[in-house]
Amino acid sequence: MKRLNFDHLACSPLLAEVRQAMLPYLSQDMGNPLSKHLFGEKPGQALENARNHVAQLINANPEEIIFTSCGSESNNLAIKGIAEAYAKKGRHILASPIEHHSVLHPLKRLERQGYEVSWLTVDKDGRVDPEEIANLVRDDTVLITVTSASNEIGTLEPIQEIGKITREKDRVFHTDAAASAGSVRIDVKELNVDLLSLAANTFYGPLGAGALYIRKGIRVSPLIEGGIQERGLRAGTHNISGIVGMGAAAKLAHEKLLERRDHLLPLRDKLIAGVREKVTDCFLTGHPAERLPGHASFCIQFIEGESILIHLNFVGMAATSGSTCSSEALKVSHVLDAIGIDAVSAQGSVVFTLGMDNSAEDVELLLTELPPIVEKLRRMSPIAAKHKA
Amino acid sequence: MKRLNFDHLACSPLLAEVRQAMLPYLSQDMGNPLSKHLFGEKPGQALENARNHVAQLINANPEEIIFTSCGSESNNLAIKGIAEAYAKKGRHILASPIEHHSVLHPLKRLERQGYEVSWLTVDKDGRVDPEEIANLVRDDTVLITVTSASNEIGTLEPIQEIGKITREKDRVFHTDAAASAGSVRIDVKELNVDLLSLAANTFYGPLGAGALYIRKGIRVSPLIEGGIQERGLRAGTHNISGIVGMGAAAKLAHEKLLERRDHLLPLRDKLIAGVREKVTDCFLTGHPAERLPGHASFCIQFIEGESILIHLNFVGMAATSGSTCSSEALKVSHVLDAIGIDAVSAQGSVVFTLGMDNSAEDVELLLTELPPIVEKLRRMSPIAAKHKA
Repeated sequence: MKRLNFDHLACSPLLAEVRQAMLPYLSQDMGNPLSKHLFGEKPGQALENARNHVAQLINANPEEIIFTSCGSESNNLAIKGIAEAYAKKGRHILASPIEHHSVLHPLKRLERQGYEVSWLTVDKDGRVDPEEIANLVRDDTVLITVTSASNEIGTLEPIQEIGKITREKDRVFHTDAAASAGSVRIDVKELNVDLLSLAANTFYGPLGAGALYIRKGIRVSPLIEGGIQERGLRAGTHNISGIVGMGAAAKLAHEKLLERRDHLLPLRDKLIAGVREKVTDCFLTGHPAERLPGHASFCIQFIEGESILIHLNFVGMAATSGSTCSSEALKVSHVLDAIGIDAVSAQGSVVFTLGMDNSAEDVELLLTELPPIVEKLRRMSPIAAKHKA
Repeated sequence: MKRLNFDHLACSPLLAEVRQAMLPYLSQDMGNPLSKHLFGEKPGQALENARNHVAQLINANPEEIIFTSCGSESNNLAIKGIAEAYAKKGRHILASPIEHHSVLHPLKRLERQGYEVSWLTVDKDGRVDPEEIANLVRDDTVLITVTSASNEIGTLEPIQEIGKITREKDRVFHTDAAASAGSVRIDVKELNVDLLSLAANTFYGPLGAGALYIRKGIRVSPLIEGGIQERGLRAGTHNISGIVGMGAAAKLAHEKLLERRDHLLPLRDKLIAGVREKVTDCFLTGHPAERLPGHASFCIQFIEGESILIHLNFVGMAATSGSTCSSEALKVSHVLDAIGIDAVSAQGSVVFTLGMDNSAEDVELLLTELPPIVEKLRRMSPIAAKHKA
């Protein structure tokens, strides 16, 4: 059975070039990049080379890139690190309600510790209003955090407009770009962001490699303390093969950004149009146009998204019903709740994220398999019977 | 030039079997272990398989193993995680003064946050006195942390004796076993430890993979929050290739423990005897017998350890002067200070950590190169001139 991946935000396939770049760093004579002796030379150079590539992807300076073990660590470091470093200045934070769990949960912890988080409103497409941020910034506001794009509904946020405001008001602005980097152009200088989180596995790099951009001059308290790695901001032995892979993936993402967008956009639009045409009682979630190039998310009503996923899996097709990180959590998505989708409809959430390995034929196959699965499940479903009645 | 690694605690060479085990998890069709669909199946199984192997290495139950990105993260998670989870019970901690920086720095932060740390005394060999712990435990003591073995002086600590006391007194006991696991037998049930940190790169596994043993029933606040990975105790996408490598390395370490010890012990003793015989004005640091099988550390007086390392590096030999993590820090080692070595002698610190790739011939080569380097440096050194005068 051919396996088709429509869940690229959980894991995009490791590119052959990336793998090739990584392999020398999994050899017997590879040392610790921090060692000052001959075993540390090659990995030490590779570390800085990777830092350059990641910096180039987002138009940062290499010394503004801190390597972490994943996007979640980057988000935790940003949120908790800013909150602690600027605690004397204030304890007020502005945040969108559709952040990834690795932003949301640190914010909830800060609330328990006495910080105040003002949750922004979002419109029905999940867009934040920059003007609301301008109005809500207070003297004690130390951080504004808004995701670049929601992994659940794909909506691109007005990061540049927010950055203009936060820079004018001299406030620290963090954005989680784990879902958007590699398929959307990111220039931290144009965007005026102060911190930006990245995850290699969303742009065809390895699982378990991430980075945090920290603009020069911004103070961050470290999360993992100990050695002097990463300028003391992130202690711990470097995952050098993963970091080299992230660097190689960032280089390719930078070079092929337009090519990737041009491949993904028509596939996405074909998928969205096809589902709307062929699946009844179904609506798109997130912004219809201002969304990630490969992202198509729906609520298919009167049945459970999980059941659809199981049946798609039977025919070799992988998708998700929300964030991979919460796929065992079985709670109604906080993102769908924030954009005003009722709990019953939210149960029917299905998210497809396309990648460079997907073809138009793949999308057609999905559009062939999906409608009969939906119809079959609706015939079987007590929810469907109840709500259609 | 043949390169000889005498710095195995910074990086032991990745075993060919470990590399082979990792490679399938760096392929194009490998998914996220958390995904509930077909792309997640193989990595999901591999994750639990690796967990079993790591658990077996220390005689833990698999569900007591939390994967992290490195030993430093494990230590940070243990120290901060226990301090936060048990804060209502008390804010007093007992710690040895010879802990790794990734234990020491979190403790210093806790002190700044209002926790009280009682620093244990160590004897001239760096050994903690279990009786002192018994005497210092108070009603508000929530954590005792003592390293299993110092990476700087190699001394093995009386973990089992400490565990007996902490278990009797019903206190949480953490030990950092990053330097000892794989070359010293560890049985968490016999030792009565509650938390134990591991780093794969110290037992021929990959760089950037670690684990924390958390005994069932012990509560820990997570450091990296977000998704439901690792039972919610460590969010973030798994570095699946690294974790699989750690599992493979743990399996081999478990099987070959005696073989490794039998290889390393005579090499270590040959090196210690040789240096004592051939290098003047030099003394061993740490315990002469109760030390890591591959560990030989010295203070070579009247010259700087860093200069010796540079000259050894010229002839292809890698060693360190203390913790790799502080090799840029240029401070006098807190470990050497704790065992009463004066600041001038401490400047001459040189640490050799042997591995399975070292032979008796390697040690002989080192014993041939080292004495003339020392003599040459002493002739050139103003410190030597001053102190010998």
